[in-house]
Amino acid sequence: YFDRLWPFCRSITGQGFLDSLDILKELIPLEKHGTKSGSMALDWTVPKVWNVNDAYVICPEGKKIIDFKANNLHLLNYSSPVKATIDLIELQKHLYSLPELPDAIPYVTSYYKERWGFCLTEKQRQSLKPGKYEVFIDSTLEDGELYYGMSLLKSTVETNREILISTYLCHPSMANNELSGPLVTAFLYKELEKLPTRNFNFRFVFVPETIGSLCFLKDYGDHLKKNCLGGFVITCCGDEGPFTYKKSREESTFTNFHSIDFLNQYCTEKSKELSVRNFFPTGSDERQYCSPGFNLAIGSITRSMYGEYEEYHTSLDNKDFISFEAMKESVGVYKEIISKMNQDTFYRNLKPHGEIMLGRRGLYPTLGAGRNVSQEIKAMNYLLNYSDGLHTIQMISDYSKIPVEELKPVARRLAEHNLLSEI
Amino acid sequence: YFDRLWPFCRSITGQGFLDSLDILKELIPLEKHGTKSGSMALDWTVPKVWNVNDAYVICPEGKKIIDFKANNLHLLNYSSPVKATIDLIELQKHLYSLPELPDAIPYVTSYYKERWGFCLTEKQRQSLKPGKYEVFIDSTLEDGELYYGMSLLKSTVETNREILISTYLCHPSMANNELSGPLVTAFLYKELEKLPTRNFNFRFVFVPETIGSLCFLKDYGDHLKKNCLGGFVITCCGDEGPFTYKKSREESTFTNFHSIDFLNQYCTEKSKELSVRNFFPTGSDERQYCSPGFNLAIGSITRSMYGEYEEYHTSLDNKDFISFEAMKESVGVYKEIISKMNQDTFYRNLKPHGEIMLGRRGLYPTLGAGRNVSQEIKAMNYLLNYSDGLHTIQMISDYSKIPVEELKPVARRLAEHNLLSEI
Amino acid sequence: YFDRLWPFCRSITGQGFLDSLDILKELIPLEKHGTKSGSMALDWTVPKVWNVNDAYVICPEGKKIIDFKANNLHLLNYSSPVKATIDLIELQKHLYSLPELPDAIPYVTSYYKERWGFCLTEKQRQSLKPGKYEVFIDSTLEDGELYYGMSLLKSTVETNREILISTYLCHPSMANNELSGPLVTAFLYKELEKLPTRNFNFRFVFVPETIGSLCFLKDYGDHLKKNCLGGFVITCCGDEGPFTYKKSREESTFTNFHSIDFLNQYCTEKSKELSVRNFFPTGSDERQYCSPGFNLAIGSITRSMYGEYEEYHTSLDNKDFISFEAMKESVGVYKEIISKMNQDTFYRNLKPHGEIMLGRRGLYPTLGAGRNVSQEIKAMNYLLNYSDGLHTIQMISDYSKIPVEELKPVARRLAEHNLLSEI
Repeated sequence: YFDRLWPFCRSITGQGFLDSLDILKELIPLEKHGTKSGSMALDWTVPKVWNVNDAYVICPEGKKIIDFKANNLHLLNYSSPVKATIDLIELQKHLYSLPELPDAIPYVTSYYKERWGFCLTEKQRQSLKPGKYEVFIDSTLEDGELYYGMSLLKSTVETNREILISTYLCHPSMANNELSGPLVTAFLYKELEKLPTRNFNFRFVFVPETIGSLCFLKDYGDHLKKNCLGGFVITCCGDEGPFTYKKSREESTFTNFHSIDFLNQYCTEKSKELSVRNFFPTGSDERQYCSPGFNLAIGSITRSMYGEYEEYHTSLDNKDFISFEAMKESVGVYKEIISKMNQDTFYRNLKPHGEIMLGRRGLYPTLGAGRNVSQEIKAMNYLLNYSDGLHTIQMISDYSKIPVEELKPVARRLAEHNLLSEI
Repeated sequence: YFDRLWPFCRSITGQGFLDSLDILKELIPLEKHGTKSGSMALDWTVPKVWNVNDAYVICPEGKKIIDFKANNLHLLNYSSPVKATIDLIELQKHLYSLPELPDAIPYVTSYYKERWGFCLTEKQRQSLKPGKYEVFIDSTLEDGELYYGMSLLKSTVETNREILISTYLCHPSMANNELSGPLVTAFLYKELEKLPTRNFNFRFVFVPETIGSLCFLKDYGDHLKKNCLGGFVITCCGDEGPFTYKKSREESTFTNFHSIDFLNQYCTEKSKELSVRNFFPTGSDERQYCSPGFNLAIGSITRSMYGEYEEYHTSLDNKDFISFEAMKESVGVYKEIISKMNQDTFYRNLKPHGEIMLGRRGLYPTLGAGRNVSQEIKAMNYLLNYSDGLHTIQMISDYSKIPVEELKPVARRLAEHNLLSEI
Repeated sequence: YFDRLWPFCRSITGQGFLDSLDILKELIPLEKHGTKSGSMALDWTVPKVWNVNDAYVICPEGKKIIDFKANNLHLLNYSSPVKATIDLIELQKHLYSLPELPDAIPYVTSYYKERWGFCLTEKQRQSLKPGKYEVFIDSTLEDGELYYGMSLLKSTVETNREILISTYLCHPSMANNELSGPLVTAFLYKELEKLPTRNFNFRFVFVPETIGSLCFLKDYGDHLKKNCLGGFVITCCGDEGPFTYKKSREESTFTNFHSIDFLNQYCTEKSKELSVRNFFPTGSDERQYCSPGFNLAIGSITRSMYGEYEEYHTSLDNKDFISFEAMKESVGVYKEIISKMNQDTFYRNLKPHGEIMLGRRGLYPTLGAGRNVSQEIKAMNYLLNYSDGLHTIQMISDYSKIPVEELKPVARRLAEHNLLSEI
């Protein structure tokens, strides 16, 4: 899948995004949701749709020296069309390179302002000789729709609760900061699909970063505020770097609890480093989900974090930088954490005044010897007393020292008797 | 009193409970409150009334080997009547003993399911020989009323404030986990009766455990939510074990504050151990009072805690296990703590905007030298500024470092001037 | 100014207060606000207006031994008129002196009860010989108005936000605990007037202590509850003692934050002591501003605190006790802290759902290389995400580690684009 997805010239709109989505559909049943160019997504305006057929620069000697077909990073993403012969001095104004990384082609975009341009290595740029250059960009910018792909992996129980899993799919040929996210997400889908019981609806979204999550929030923001209890933005999880957890904006969330709990244990066992970061409002789509108006419980587990590795946003973020073993491990870690979230529950005691008469519901021994309160009775007492909307099962387990595995079936029995209701 | 109360076959209903109440009435003026069999007490159904005249087992040799009249623990509490001659093998299904305590008769009940049975020591059980046994239980289960006894020791001042003192009286002949509770409570009543000033109404209830406190809450739950500022469940306070304080469910309560404050000081002075426990939703009637719907400030001071001593709920919990000195000490400790609660007060500043003009009320010297603020003026200032519904006098004392004894009369004067009102 | 203000016989009403106000008007444009004698100021009644022409005591030998004109502290403040010849024994009942400070004339008042009296040193009192004394007090107590002076130093921007600066002007000839307050306040006005930008309205009040701040609160209390974000009571800031900060009643206020932050740094740099005190409800007019009904964010920076130096409220609190250098330093410290408050801001994100599209407002580069998030973009992200009504710029700076100087212009730009609004 990596090799098949690699060559597409993805962007926030256009054929590359859709073709990539089509390949991912082999792994996860994604539905396209479109928003028209020019319409609003919260505060943002959806841009025109960009497509590109070809783009190159021919040097004075007649050689095609920069070729979109060789590496789609060579083209400034969202370049408007151009066909001209210009002096090197004029061409320079349209070239982007990184003096600090002379062998890297940078990834540069201009979504919201019409420009044309090429990206190249600093080395190549230094070698350009004065003279007339032929520049050619065969691209189109037309009204159309910006899409995101969505898949709802339905709970196996009747519930409105959701866990949101969001990744982005709008960067051209890059590995860690592009393909690791959607690939880990798609394979995570396959893992979660196998869960015998899903107590949450798992909403998967593959968005163009920022504008796509905003279109999604325009469509589903109110729904998420009501039903989304936690989730993740999946990105940069393909390299061998140590795990990094970026917390949700609110401190005491379901997502933070389980992520930190699991990662602490996992990294200790494997003698791996772990970095836990407070929320910060830069980064990826958690910026949208954790904006103060939504403030969802969305965290993010990455390996080397975006912006913190040198290869980030350049042609050096390629297949050599990532490792399929690492991606598999990332899928595993996400799967374990989400499985734990899947097993945790918020309940509410429906008869909070006095104890419930468990005996007449067959939940309490009719014979009272009372010398030892059985663990099960203790579990019922704790669940009924502390299911006040503030404590999850896991918190009740922490407080009561009764293992969650013992609380769970007891809570389910109480819920069957309409004594607790899940939130 | 202990010896007179000991022989009754108490249960959650029936003559044993009423006879015991009658004896206690010599110490505390208890009024019976009845709830009809079959009616609801919150989530619970009140059972039929149980009475027993006689019960025994005659062995194949014709000897009365198990005799209710010798020890009322021999009869399964709430046994239905039976008269039959059965094989040992059949009899065994109706026998209860404790292999781990071969010399103890266990205390077993079956309030909510009709059963018959006998309790005996494991030793005796082992000695039973095959053959025909005559079993006889002359008991009745009839519609009637379940009672609790209540006594309101009125405040000597006009107030709705209450402190609740709850104990239970439904176990047959046992000492620490039965008679210590009602006896300490009754003698505590006599002590509190002597208080020259009672700033609270003291509501004493003697309930059959669980079902009785639920009947009481059905009758008085709303009243308590409004007026009850603290209180205790009194039980297991007759042995020489170290003091144990079980906190109310809410952390920062009047009850917790004074109990921990006094017990810390008392146990330090006497070089005694003290164990302070967080609330847990098993135990006695605090389970009802601290259920999330009521969430009253009810704690419990015990010696050896229920369920934590071997003799608990067996015939070994007898007069040898307890000590009248220990019970006297328990009365004293409760009395001291409740006296301190009796002296503490929540006030509210009735004119919270700006300072009050104390001078025109004769509360402030008309002559201002101002070189030293007198302690009394300081006390007024602290009381008026911090009586915001969140701070008790004791908390204000802690903050201001002004002894409570100095704050009290000042607060009372301010209240007389309608500047503070007690909550 | 000190020498001109010194001789007036100030009191809570009367010519001395008004004459002093007239002199201060040379420094700060004060408007008089009057409240009629007999009318209510919250819980208080405004007393009659007191004026005095002359007062003295002539000894048996015919010598004027106590003379108001020599030192206005000699007269009990608010003395009613008297003209009589009396025995020493009778005179003694009207004399006030301090045995513990034999060389000091005490400052004594009787605003709310009619009395006459004289204050003198303990030494002088001891030297009085039996005989007939002529006492004469030519004072008047008439209906009129109690005044406070107020000046609103308007913000240079359109805003309702206010910082309150309150001092008192009702003590006769004393230095630290009288003139240091109004003088530091008046010169602080002159300093704040020079601020090129005032983001707050600075409301200055010169009140007779207690009754005057109550009259002011009667007039402006509701207004302050809505608009006053912080401020100070300025008093006792003229001696060389170490700085003392008395916190506002609420812990996490703008005033506490900046005062403690600045004073910590300043006192460390200058190797001076600093004492930070929790709020206490005795002291000066912060008693009124921080009464629970108003609970404004008013603190107080003093040098030697009222009541804590021996010379307090006596003739020894004179020009020798204070230092003009110290007063200058106090002006400087207040100016620095208020300048910092003036530069801090509470903002609210007006579009809290999702990120704002900064690009279409020219606030975000249209070219996305994304390798490094510029500090400015980071600042915008933090400001927009955390301007939720709970965090000031300074708190956001603390959290983001972005210097306030970088956040400020960014916030202002965001506000210009109607993305943030100041609170």
